[in-house]
Amino acid sequence: MSATLPSAVDAFTAALGADKVITEPEALREWRDPFQHESSDDYAASAVLMPTTVEEIQAILAIANEQRVPLWTHGQGRNNGYGGPAPRVSGSVIVSLRNMNRVLEINEELGYAVVEPGVRWFDLYEAIQAGGHKLSVSIPDLGWGSVVGNTLDHGMSYMPYGVDQQAQCGMEVVLADGTVMRTGMGAMEGNRAWHCYKRGLGPTPDQMFMQSNFGIVTKMGYWLMPEPEIYMPLWLRAPNDDDLGPLVDTLRRLMLDGTIRMVPQIGNVVGAASVMSKRTDWWDGDGAIPEVTLQRMADELGCGRWTMRFALYGDEAVVDHRFAKIKDAFETAIPGGAVWGTKHGPEAWPTLDAHEQVQAGIPNLGINAMTAWYGGEEGGHVGFSPVAPLTGRDALAVRDLMRPMMEEAGLDYFAGICPINGRSFAHVTLILFDLKDRAQSERAYALSRRLVEEAGRRGYGEYRAHIDFMDLASDQYGFNDHAYRRFNERIKDALDPNGILSPGKSGIWPAHMREDAGAR
Amino acid sequence: MSATLPSAVDAFTAALGADKVITEPEALREWRDPFQHESSDDYAASAVLMPTTVEEIQAILAIANEQRVPLWTHGQGRNNGYGGPAPRVSGSVIVSLRNMNRVLEINEELGYAVVEPGVRWFDLYEAIQAGGHKLSVSIPDLGWGSVVGNTLDHGMSYMPYGVDQQAQCGMEVVLADGTVMRTGMGAMEGNRAWHCYKRGLGPTPDQMFMQSNFGIVTKMGYWLMPEPEIYMPLWLRAPNDDDLGPLVDTLRRLMLDGTIRMVPQIGNVVGAASVMSKRTDWWDGDGAIPEVTLQRMADELGCGRWTMRFALYGDEAVVDHRFAKIKDAFETAIPGGAVWGTKHGPEAWPTLDAHEQVQAGIPNLGINAMTAWYGGEEGGHVGFSPVAPLTGRDALAVRDLMRPMMEEAGLDYFAGICPINGRSFAHVTLILFDLKDRAQSERAYALSRRLVEEAGRRGYGEYRAHIDFMDLASDQYGFNDHAYRRFNERIKDALDPNGILSPGKSGIWPAHMREDAGAR
Repeated sequence: MSATLPSAVDAFTAALGADKVITEPEALREWRDPFQHESSDDYAASAVLMPTTVEEIQAILAIANEQRVPLWTHGQGRNNGYGGPAPRVSGSVIVSLRNMNRVLEINEELGYAVVEPGVRWFDLYEAIQAGGHKLSVSIPDLGWGSVVGNTLDHGMSYMPYGVDQQAQCGMEVVLADGTVMRTGMGAMEGNRAWHCYKRGLGPTPDQMFMQSNFGIVTKMGYWLMPEPEIYMPLWLRAPNDDDLGPLVDTLRRLMLDGTIRMVPQIGNVVGAASVMSKRTDWWDGDGAIPEVTLQRMADELGCGRWTMRFALYGDEAVVDHRFAKIKDAFETAIPGGAVWGTKHGPEAWPTLDAHEQVQAGIPNLGINAMTAWYGGEEGGHVGFSPVAPLTGRDALAVRDLMRPMMEEAGLDYFAGICPINGRSFAHVTLILFDLKDRAQSERAYALSRRLVEEAGRRGYGEYRAHIDFMDLASDQYGFNDHAYRRFNERIKDALDPNGILSPGKSGIWPAHMREDAGAR
Repeated sequence: MSATLPSAVDAFTAALGADKVITEPEALREWRDPFQHESSDDYAASAVLMPTTVEEIQAILAIANEQRVPLWTHGQGRNNGYGGPAPRVSGSVIVSLRNMNRVLEINEELGYAVVEPGVRWFDLYEAIQAGGHKLSVSIPDLGWGSVVGNTLDHGMSYMPYGVDQQAQCGMEVVLADGTVMRTGMGAMEGNRAWHCYKRGLGPTPDQMFMQSNFGIVTKMGYWLMPEPEIYMPLWLRAPNDDDLGPLVDTLRRLMLDGTIRMVPQIGNVVGAASVMSKRTDWWDGDGAIPEVTLQRMADELGCGRWTMRFALYGDEAVVDHRFAKIKDAFETAIPGGAVWGTKHGPEAWPTLDAHEQVQAGIPNLGINAMTAWYGGEEGGHVGFSPVAPLTGRDALAVRDLMRPMMEEAGLDYFAGICPINGRSFAHVTLILFDLKDRAQSERAYALSRRLVEEAGRRGYGEYRAHIDFMDLASDQYGFNDHAYRRFNERIKDALDPNGILSPGKSGIWPAHMREDAGAR
């Protein structure tokens, strides 16, 4: 690989032009995992390519196939907490699609947008506003990421179409051999239902291109919801740590019966405190914040031990009925708990706070402040995110698994429980650390690996994995001698025999890298 | 193939026992397309195998691989209108999973069932009732089919989980080489979120096993909805043929804003008349029923030119608000139109009529009567079902394409327009004919093929295709020199190199049958 790279760079430069090829060591630093310790040289790219067209992607693939260059693709590279823009295999050439950033269509009548992979949430929102469309886009917490990139990594978003991550419809993919394929109804020339119906005639491959390395997605449909008459952001406060059980059981019933139709976020006291205060306001001793201090934070900040952010959308009469039902259900189930919120018409949404804007589809970066818990502007964090059934028993079991392990490593338990639907949640754990504290950083990474194994032992698997433990997370999915991984390997070998596309993504390796585990 | 079959049958019999192997010509007639003319010997199976376990399926696959026997799998074989149980390739051995019919789990708390492929809608409903579960199952029009089979063929169902065909979650699949794989969270041993979260870590293959020939599904999760407080079946009548335009545009707005959350069915006057009367009550002349008679039928039966069957589910206050909104919207958009319905609590649902039971998840066969339009108990029919964007323009365009072509062939235009979501509909056309009238049957099949081509020329593709024109329907999906089909062929060759699983399904052929189109 290192021997072939100079000639590959020459070929890439000839094909794309020098302005689309980055190789200077200083410039390449921007493309590393932002939370990696400075002295580490893991996961470093050898070059970055910035194509702007499908034809340029095809040219890159031709060269990579000829010279056996491993590529690593992203939309914006904002997969922070899971490796950011950095490749799994050091020395890979990053294909950054940041400059393929056109909003190709916004269809007001049928409620969808078609975007290229470099389009950010900010860009899509602005295009909707600029066109005067009365449509809302379900977004994640931070607006700087790519619509396509987040969707392809199973990223969460919070409005009604965030339930079951259902907003994607129809895509164009470039396969490793350069073939341009369109999925669903798009497989028929001139079919205007491409972004309206999720399937086609025959098998539906869209989700095979998510969290995988089977192709490069170059266009994607994303559904937009008509602006509701009323958006009512809601908050719930639960005073005690064990209230999590009845909170989750009540929530499941209200999601299954359709009363709540969006993706709530249940944060613990550390999460709430991280946006309302500084860690040093509460604790400057060694190790994790002790229990007695956590309860004091909950009481003094008035946020309780658990805070749920959620919302209602719709006609005012329906919102009123549902709010009364929700308030009664939670306040009955959780003694001392409280539910509150305010109704707003569309004109007021941009005036709301960062959390409430996120649930209204208005992108911002306000919530990123929470990563600075241990100091600095943006703190390091690793995401550890197991999935579990949406029951109070499972929520308490996951808490009781993670909290002691995190505290034993001297780190605060920082939890954001996100019900992806009425039947399951992802326990998104931000393992925060101070980037300047090398020992703490190393403890955080080591802890993450232990958590993956311990969770796996109890039947909880990750919904998304950091590049540093992708293989370990994938190892946990071992049913029938890793039948699922062997299936993926067969698909990989059939579609990408030279193994050039994102080797190692989600633990899927091409044949020549499987033989010698040391080559990883 | 014919040379190897006797030894294959011996091997199947040795592996399964003689009682699970059917080869008598008379018994095999039951496994033909029920709407095929008696004198035709197309699409005939050479044997039927009825395994009851995964191990028996593995034994069948081992023999089929060794002896290169083409198999054709179904759950119940009730794919009527699309070929029924019959294989695409004559001489195939049918693997009927009718006797793999256990309901493996009903989870009341998390709202799902796990079923084997032979479980019928009748069986699942009965199991729910027998367990006293307050759960509803979204079902298709006829209760005799397989839950798994209907789902794998992209079949529609009508309750809220029928929207986007979203009820399936998690499956077990036996691949062609006998490997047992579990998808999603099921890829992890002991993971209880298998039927709660639709994805896993890495790509999600579930929909690759639908309308394809990549594996045999042996277990599947299917979501069940908590019984709503109120079910309100609704009916809409539109007096004029062109009312279809404003009907569909109004419906789209009410589906996109969440007011209607289920799959409606919009039938034309022939559809309504077929359950309320006999064709001979109206017309005994040659050819299709003329326009003037159609309008007389609409007026005298009081069903209008278009009838929509739909429903509301939920808390009474929400249902009341929505009913008033719906009634106002349609009656304003359609002069002379009417919307009506009655609210019912769960105890009343079994007393409703066949249509209203279907929307409440109570399986029956009442609607099958409509196939007898040209006489007999059950008439022949071919399903032709193009997908289009959910706009009034497209609904009228599809009608104006199909009706003249059907009438030219001397057949009545019989339409059931089903919005699969708020953005698209499948125009399910029943091309009905009298099985005893050979000339009419042949005209119906010939017409179907012409419709596939004409619809494809206008950018409308089929959501599901009859075995008689699967290749033709697949041909319409020709973007970039059939990139999608070539993708499927690569997957097919990787997973099933001997091409034993359902060759030809959805136009996907194994390598040795692609070379020589004549072998099809």
